Amino acid sequence: MQYPSKLIEDAVNEISKLPGIGKKTALRLALHLLKQDEGTTESLSSALVNLRQQTKYCRICHIISDSEDCTCESIRKDSSLLCVVEDTPDVIAIQNTSQFYGYFHVLGGIISPIEGIGPGELNIDSLVERVRKSEGVIKEVILALSPTMEGDTTSFYIAKKLKSFDIKITTIARGVPIGGELEYTDEVTLGRSIVQRLVFDITTD
Amino acid sequence: MQYPSKLIEDAVNEISKLPGIGKKTALRLALHLLKQDEGTTESLSSALVNLRQQTKYCRICHIISDSEDCTCESIRKDSSLLCVVEDTPDVIAIQNTSQFYGYFHVLGGIISPIEGIGPGELNIDSLVERVRKSEGVIKEVILALSPTMEGDTTSFYIAKKLKSFDIKITTIARGVPIGGELEYTDEVTLGRSIVQRLVFDITTD
Repeated sequence: MQYPSKLIEDAVNEISKLPGIGKKTALRLALHLLKQDEGTTESLSSALVNLRQQTKYCRICHIISDSEDCTCESIRKDSSLLCVVEDTPDVIAIQNTSQFYGYFHVLGGIISPIEGIGPGELNIDSLVERVRKSEGVIKEVILALSPTMEGDTTSFYIAKKLKSFDIKITTIARGVPIGGELEYTDEVTLGRSIVQRLVFDITTD
Repeated sequence: MQYPSKLIEDAVNEISKLPGIGKKTALRLALHLLKQDEGTTESLSSALVNLRQQTKYCRICHIISDSEDCTCESIRKDSSLLCVVEDTPDVIAIQNTSQFYGYFHVLGGIISPIEGIGPGELNIDSLVERVRKSEGVIKEVILALSPTMEGDTTSFYIAKKLKSFDIKITTIARGVPIGGELEYTDEVTLGRSIVQRLVFDITTD
């Protein structure tokens, strides 16, 4: 595609690097910005740079945060519950159900041999350490991973790692459609899957 | 929706101001940027700011350009042809057909009483002036506007304005689906509509 100016070509190329955005959509977005006042583009631009440069990950729960100590230690109600999720959108999705009042632990991904992600790349050691350090305060770990092959593998791996502790290991109810992505599940289904969580069974191995 | 950090909330709010991008897509894009290296976000950000701050409009054809004198005066082959379009995406679309070798004139919009856009807001006076100044070099003005109510109204208005000149006024062949938007038409249809352009008829008034 030929563009009338280098500036618009650069902008289209950069925007279309984003996932799910092609050249035509990128052009539309660029032309939209050209028609707004300069402040709109500047706010967008600085919000992105600030996000990328200043975002920290909480050293306890590994959630995206404005500082290395997020509010995870203070705002939740029930310190006996720890919910393990793949990534930040899952935390947001579960919070929006208003059905969970415990703590979160973000793995930062799931075990995926195809993508070369092993247990070592995930925040699993720190999860085990967190359970150990709680000295019995954490009574239940809820595995809220997507019900896919990778999610199940990860749940299984974590359940085995936590086997030695005197805690209940549960998994969210499989009301979530099998093969679907957790972050896109509707709030009612997801909320029910938190309420109807099931004891995780590892007797099959 | 609750976000785990102010930075991500700001980014989501700014991204979702773009047309066709909702909060969920915005969150996905923000999290995507967080997983890329900092350079990706910086390139995107500066491309947008540069686009918005440095983009000029050619003072002759009003196309988006890197300077106030775009290459419109030199690169085209046939200086007797002038193609009038609504906006920049239309120029790109027509160039991609490789069926047009004349000049362009960008109106910057079309007459739309509903949106409060009258002929005065568009680059119509400068079009008339351009035809006058060409002293007979421009022999044909092609009206390549979307075949909608507003596009037809604008074509009609321009045709009447150019009536006094000794030029042929044509309109692109209506192979373009009626009611559709010009910039999304496929290249074959759009190319044919340039080749099969019709003499614009204003005898009906």
